[in-house]
Amino acid sequence: MAKFKLDEIDHQILDMLIENTRTPFTDIAKKLLISAGTVHVRVKKMEEAGIIIGSSLTLDYRKLGYSFIAYVGVYLQNTSQTKFVIERLNAIPFVTVAHITTGKFNIFCKVRAKDTQHAKEIIFRIDDIEGVSRTETMISLEESINDKKRLMHDIFNQL
Amino acid sequence: MAKFKLDEIDHQILDMLIENTRTPFTDIAKKLLISAGTVHVRVKKMEEAGIIIGSSLTLDYRKLGYSFIAYVGVYLQNTSQTKFVIERLNAIPFVTVAHITTGKFNIFCKVRAKDTQHAKEIIFRIDDIEGVSRTETMISLEESINDKKRLMHDIFNQL
Amino acid sequence: MAKFKLDEIDHQILDMLIENTRTPFTDIAKKLLISAGTVHVRVKKMEEAGIIIGSSLTLDYRKLGYSFIAYVGVYLQNTSQTKFVIERLNAIPFVTVAHITTGKFNIFCKVRAKDTQHAKEIIFRIDDIEGVSRTETMISLEESINDKKRLMHDIFNQL
Amino acid sequence: MAKFKLDEIDHQILDMLIENTRTPFTDIAKKLLISAGTVHVRVKKMEEAGIIIGSSLTLDYRKLGYSFIAYVGVYLQNTSQTKFVIERLNAIPFVTVAHITTGKFNIFCKVRAKDTQHAKEIIFRIDDIEGVSRTETMISLEESINDKKRLMHDIFNQL
Amino acid sequence: MAKFKLDEIDHQILDMLIENTRTPFTDIAKKLLISAGTVHVRVKKMEEAGIIIGSSLTLDYRKLGYSFIAYVGVYLQNTSQTKFVIERLNAIPFVTVAHITTGKFNIFCKVRAKDTQHAKEIIFRIDDIEGVSRTETMISLEESINDKKRLMHDIFNQL
Amino acid sequence: MAKFKLDEIDHQILDMLIENTRTPFTDIAKKLLISAGTVHVRVKKMEEAGIIIGSSLTLDYRKLGYSFIAYVGVYLQNTSQTKFVIERLNAIPFVTVAHITTGKFNIFCKVRAKDTQHAKEIIFRIDDIEGVSRTETMISLEESINDKKRLMHDIFNQL
Amino acid sequence: MAKFKLDEIDHQILDMLIENTRTPFTDIAKKLLISAGTVHVRVKKMEEAGIIIGSSLTLDYRKLGYSFIAYVGVYLQNTSQTKFVIERLNAIPFVTVAHITTGKFNIFCKVRAKDTQHAKEIIFRIDDIEGVSRTETMISLEESINDKKRLMHDIFNQL
Amino acid sequence: MAKFKLDEIDHQILDMLIENTRTPFTDIAKKLLISAGTVHVRVKKMEEAGIIIGSSLTLDYRKLGYSFIAYVGVYLQNTSQTKFVIERLNAIPFVTVAHITTGKFNIFCKVRAKDTQHAKEIIFRIDDIEGVSRTETMISLEESINDKKRLMHDIFNQL
Repeated sequence: MAKFKLDEIDHQILDMLIENTRTPFTDIAKKLLISAGTVHVRVKKMEEAGIIIGSSLTLDYRKLGYSFIAYVGVYLQNTSQTKFVIERLNAIPFVTVAHITTGKFNIFCKVRAKDTQHAKEIIFRIDDIEGVSRTETMISLEESINDKKRLMHDIFNQL
Repeated sequence: MAKFKLDEIDHQILDMLIENTRTPFTDIAKKLLISAGTVHVRVKKMEEAGIIIGSSLTLDYRKLGYSFIAYVGVYLQNTSQTKFVIERLNAIPFVTVAHITTGKFNIFCKVRAKDTQHAKEIIFRIDDIEGVSRTETMISLEESINDKKRLMHDIFNQL
Repeated sequence: MAKFKLDEIDHQILDMLIENTRTPFTDIAKKLLISAGTVHVRVKKMEEAGIIIGSSLTLDYRKLGYSFIAYVGVYLQNTSQTKFVIERLNAIPFVTVAHITTGKFNIFCKVRAKDTQHAKEIIFRIDDIEGVSRTETMISLEESINDKKRLMHDIFNQL
Repeated sequence: MAKFKLDEIDHQILDMLIENTRTPFTDIAKKLLISAGTVHVRVKKMEEAGIIIGSSLTLDYRKLGYSFIAYVGVYLQNTSQTKFVIERLNAIPFVTVAHITTGKFNIFCKVRAKDTQHAKEIIFRIDDIEGVSRTETMISLEESINDKKRLMHDIFNQL
Repeated sequence: MAKFKLDEIDHQILDMLIENTRTPFTDIAKKLLISAGTVHVRVKKMEEAGIIIGSSLTLDYRKLGYSFIAYVGVYLQNTSQTKFVIERLNAIPFVTVAHITTGKFNIFCKVRAKDTQHAKEIIFRIDDIEGVSRTETMISLEESINDKKRLMHDIFNQL
Repeated sequence: MAKFKLDEIDHQILDMLIENTRTPFTDIAKKLLISAGTVHVRVKKMEEAGIIIGSSLTLDYRKLGYSFIAYVGVYLQNTSQTKFVIERLNAIPFVTVAHITTGKFNIFCKVRAKDTQHAKEIIFRIDDIEGVSRTETMISLEESINDKKRLMHDIFNQL
Repeated sequence: MAKFKLDEIDHQILDMLIENTRTPFTDIAKKLLISAGTVHVRVKKMEEAGIIIGSSLTLDYRKLGYSFIAYVGVYLQNTSQTKFVIERLNAIPFVTVAHITTGKFNIFCKVRAKDTQHAKEIIFRIDDIEGVSRTETMISLEESINDKKRLMHDIFNQL
Repeated sequence: MAKFKLDEIDHQILDMLIENTRTPFTDIAKKLLISAGTVHVRVKKMEEAGIIIGSSLTLDYRKLGYSFIAYVGVYLQNTSQTKFVIERLNAIPFVTVAHITTGKFNIFCKVRAKDTQHAKEIIFRIDDIEGVSRTETMISLEESINDKKRLMHDIFNQL
């Protein structure tokens, strides 16, 4: 739980990569008035420390035919099955997020599907996992915010 | 709603970038037996078509001091206020996701906070947005899955 | 509340028209060994008694682009507004059924929409009716049964 | 999911039949200034395309002694039983509508009964279907809207 | 379901007995300007018709040491057990009312107990009936109205 | 809260009157081997002590045309309105019982009505009382137990 | 249920000990103008009567690393298991309070944990007790009041 | 949030005082083979560090006439009123615990009362606090565990 200490330079590097992970290190170096090698070393160190886990493209799911988003709350028969059920959920690529939660659900997932019919198939697949007793679904009518960059900028500019 | 037609090559390019957005185009070119210029052109086209929206770093929030995740369901006084409330939520960087949903909540958000005390402050900030009548919070005990790559690979290998 | 007395012949006529409202009266007459005039007179009488209200086509909504069905529970601010709200709902053609109900909702409607986006617009329109305090939506993943004929046959063969 | 293309004439024909399925084709022809044969051909084509599934009488259930309407939410022990339970529901003529739904219920049905006593018998019959774990009933105090014609007219006049 | 026809005199007799079941028939006779024999005959007839089932004392439960009232909602494992469970409830004298209900409970009872401790024992006894899966209790803080006479007077004065 | 002390004889008198309030005091006297005067004195004393509040006929509501029973949970805007709302409920003769309760409802009532239509009118009347924000109704499918005599016998035979 | 009779002096002694259990008896004696022996005798008597059960330190849990408080509602499979489950809960030191309750939960507990991860382990331990069917957790964002002294002072100053 | 460092000796001292706050320091000293002065100094230090906040008597509430325990969930009109409402709750001595919580309630309190009547008065007092929109009460049938000593011993023996 002890935090890795990032300094002002690290934050500025992250702040630029957050915006565009393909920003050339030379551009970052120029802007921060440091050498490209320094950028490289610091990014490496943050990767090794596990702060930077990887990078990913932000794609428009709707343009790829996936316009249906649902949140599925899962009730287990017994929480001793949690780990097993999480593994089974992990085998369903349409489950993009899953949390063990407090409140009425044991597990809470985010599902991306093509349409109602596809969502039904995915929900049924979740329902049929051994140990799942019931699920409850909430459908997204619009994904209004999905943006971690605001949080990241806030974190990096806080210090 | 008409889908942009991606061919096999596009899919393979996306499949590699999904894994690491910093993969040099020359590496992609070599692997797919095409020229780096072709990779460049196709990525450009997918960006222009709005399929690729951007790229972002995957960071370990816990290492950055943000280990607390909550889902907050928002009840509005009236849905005519939805757009206004979404804008106010957008001004809170700790709200990383927000959906307009069916079911008992009008809006459903994902919040990342430092700890219980910080979560309380964020929830109170949401509660105090004009037009919000009540909120209900579900706390994550563990983020077991948060991975869009499985979905992306599935989409790109489907065709 | 006093029931109009239908006899065996009436029941058999209804039983055939239920199956196909365009069945020529001469076919019915032949099958029941009565005159076509008798069929005509009896149908007329049942129309005048308000038993037969009309006839309608059964269309495939999905083929007409309406594949999305939702049930929307409406909470009113005050039940004195019930009549007013029902009138407003009646002005939304996508609300095909509406009931005043016991239980947690004041009014319960069935909505047919083109897709998620369209459903959102309809739900917002309902939410914005004066007197409506909140709505709760349940989405149909599949309309497995929608058939009044089984009931009608049962009624007509009971006696 | 690809929609059959209906033209203006088709829409006008449907618009008239929707109002009264027994409208003679000659009347339709006269109004639309086309031949009765054309009406016949187009109706046939719409039937073959599965757009027109059939026709049915609109009867006054109350006058037939069925004044009690209830919505019954069904919880299954396991969704793998959905298909089986739907078949059993289909064998109960008083279940006129059944949907597989999101939200707290697995299946949601509309039931028409003679009175409270009859409703109790039907609900018990549903409860006793193998695989049903519990049901929850909401009673209609008044069926204020039950009318697909407004939707149909809207669809046919949209284009 | 066919109602026994009570006339004006019957109503007036009931109206007086409702207020005090021990009112001498001679008093009733005098007031209604009929003979005591007539009162006797009519009461007899109403008893035989099952309209008058009996009579009972209205006692002050609190003065008898029973000041605790709770409503207990019962969930059954299966509604086929309803009759059996009702019989078991009938064997618990503290269950003064029990209904088979729509909504979330299968059976809904009224329980009178001496105090919290006694209520707990009764609730546990209900919970332990075979076929009962769970109960939910709502406690009365004050019995503000318990009076059928207003209804009876209303009925008898309506006609 | 101090209980009036009833002795064995009082209990036996109550036990007989509970069964039939019109039992002549001479019959009770004969059975208990005491004088009719003693019975009279003791009943008088129990009336004066407020233990016996009155007596009432047990009528068959269904035979009087009242076959519909509902439980209505009332949510108030503010509990300071409780007393006022109870008074308004008291003015509706169809509300035969009303409790101030713990749990989700502020007030919980029992309503007797003629049929669904009548129930709707009564529920609307309750909904329209000033201070009532919402009601939730649970309908009785069968009144299986309604009998205070078992409890009374139990009390009188306990000592 | 019969209360031990405490007099004015007893109340004043309790009132001082409530504030600080280590207050020397001589100080109490001086203040109340009685002998220290009398204080001693009376405290002894109240201990023997079971009014004073013991004394305990009030520690700051957060300073001891326990800043996470949750309320956990427990649903049992059957209330006959209540005693057994309470015993198992008693073996978990982090469960500081447990009640058998009315309403939707069978047992309701207060849990103190170090952090989210620790809370998860405790909740899972509760979930895994034989006879527990499900739990629902509510997390404290701030313990604003935890003080029995106000109540005690109120009680001791009432008489 | 930085923890004060307690050593083995501190833990053993707390472990003994937890059991009985009136244990003479000389007894503790003897047992731990240290001087009474050391005990005194260390207790002083723990008090100054805010670890020991005070001490309190454990009394038997039932013997003091307070046998009724309820948990009251409070819904606020707006969370900006939280601080104000907590202050008002603090003025009611019968509210012994109050938490700001996640989930459906804004504030969750524990109430100790004499009996049902007294509980009603307290709940009404809470309901009438400005800013409180509604409350929901859950009544304790038995306080099965109320013991922080097990937790304390666990903490002190962990290290």
